[in-house]
Amino acid sequence: MDTLILKKRKPWNYTGSPTVSSAGRHSSIPKTVMASVQTLLATFRRFQPTVEGFRWETVPLKQYKPEGTHFRDITRQVLFGPESGLPAELRYFEVAPGGYSTFERHAHVHAVLILRGRGRAIVGEQIFEIAPFDLIHIPAWTWHQFQADKNETLGFLCMVAVDRDRPTRPTPEEAQQLRRHPIIGPYVRL
Amino acid sequence: MDTLILKKRKPWNYTGSPTVSSAGRHSSIPKTVMASVQTLLATFRRFQPTVEGFRWETVPLKQYKPEGTHFRDITRQVLFGPESGLPAELRYFEVAPGGYSTFERHAHVHAVLILRGRGRAIVGEQIFEIAPFDLIHIPAWTWHQFQADKNETLGFLCMVAVDRDRPTRPTPEEAQQLRRHPIIGPYVRL
Repeated sequence: MDTLILKKRKPWNYTGSPTVSSAGRHSSIPKTVMASVQTLLATFRRFQPTVEGFRWETVPLKQYKPEGTHFRDITRQVLFGPESGLPAELRYFEVAPGGYSTFERHAHVHAVLILRGRGRAIVGEQIFEIAPFDLIHIPAWTWHQFQADKNETLGFLCMVAVDRDRPTRPTPEEAQQLRRHPIIGPYVRL
Repeated sequence: MDTLILKKRKPWNYTGSPTVSSAGRHSSIPKTVMASVQTLLATFRRFQPTVEGFRWETVPLKQYKPEGTHFRDITRQVLFGPESGLPAELRYFEVAPGGYSTFERHAHVHAVLILRGRGRAIVGEQIFEIAPFDLIHIPAWTWHQFQADKNETLGFLCMVAVDRDRPTRPTPEEAQQLRRHPIIGPYVRL
């Protein structure tokens, strides 16, 4: 893994003086910085967008099935997991155009910041149209779902406690009630 | 506070049907959604950028002194604080061109995601040139400082545990050593 990453990096251009060029990123950071590769990789991970979506150095992509029974076209990347030494994790979810996350609820809360694209957030009995850098708080035991617009890739950060319960999906009875709801009924994807 | 916020919002255009327009944001969300203003404000907060910098609905700005003895031109906004019910907070820091954060260290760790602009991060004995969406992990007891480029406003998210220790700054002896460091010495602002 480390070898692979090092091969992908540009060669270090050690000039002998500890200058940092503003022209090329990282190009002139002295070789001595590489003393500990593990530390380097853990400390700094570069953003590496692709045509498939947002990606980061050394961050594995969790590809959900392209189409499940209760979600569609969504991927997850754990940007800061339990190994970071924090009691919370920061994950990045990306939903392809027309895709959506699982409609679910649980005891733990979510703190969300939209990073790219537009779409809708269903939170309890409310629907919000969402755009980059908007903030959404999902309270405990509140139904929620994120949906990308038809022509937009929706990406968002989600902060969550390391210790948390498993999400639950609507029972058949709840699903029936939700579909009849005057506000969110027409939008829920169960 | 609530009254002020409501006055700032566009009037709700209730059409009688629970449709969500993709043309105007929030313009056609039904009136019934407003049943609980408190819930609404806590659940969804819109991004409201200004010429002075990134801002969010109802998020107070903590303006540091324009120039302190050990930091310059930096503001803080707590996007998700302890009231969110999470064991961690998500803060947004914005550093004006040429500004910098306090050079400090502490037992708690930071998980940082750059949101706008370019600059440098000093982490321990390393310097990283940083750009939007890059990730930086500050380990425990590691000296660190964020510096904006001369012509760039640098904005970043910082995830931190709710329960944490106070930062410490270099002693006169440490400051002397840091200034002599071959890599970070020329860059530290103490």
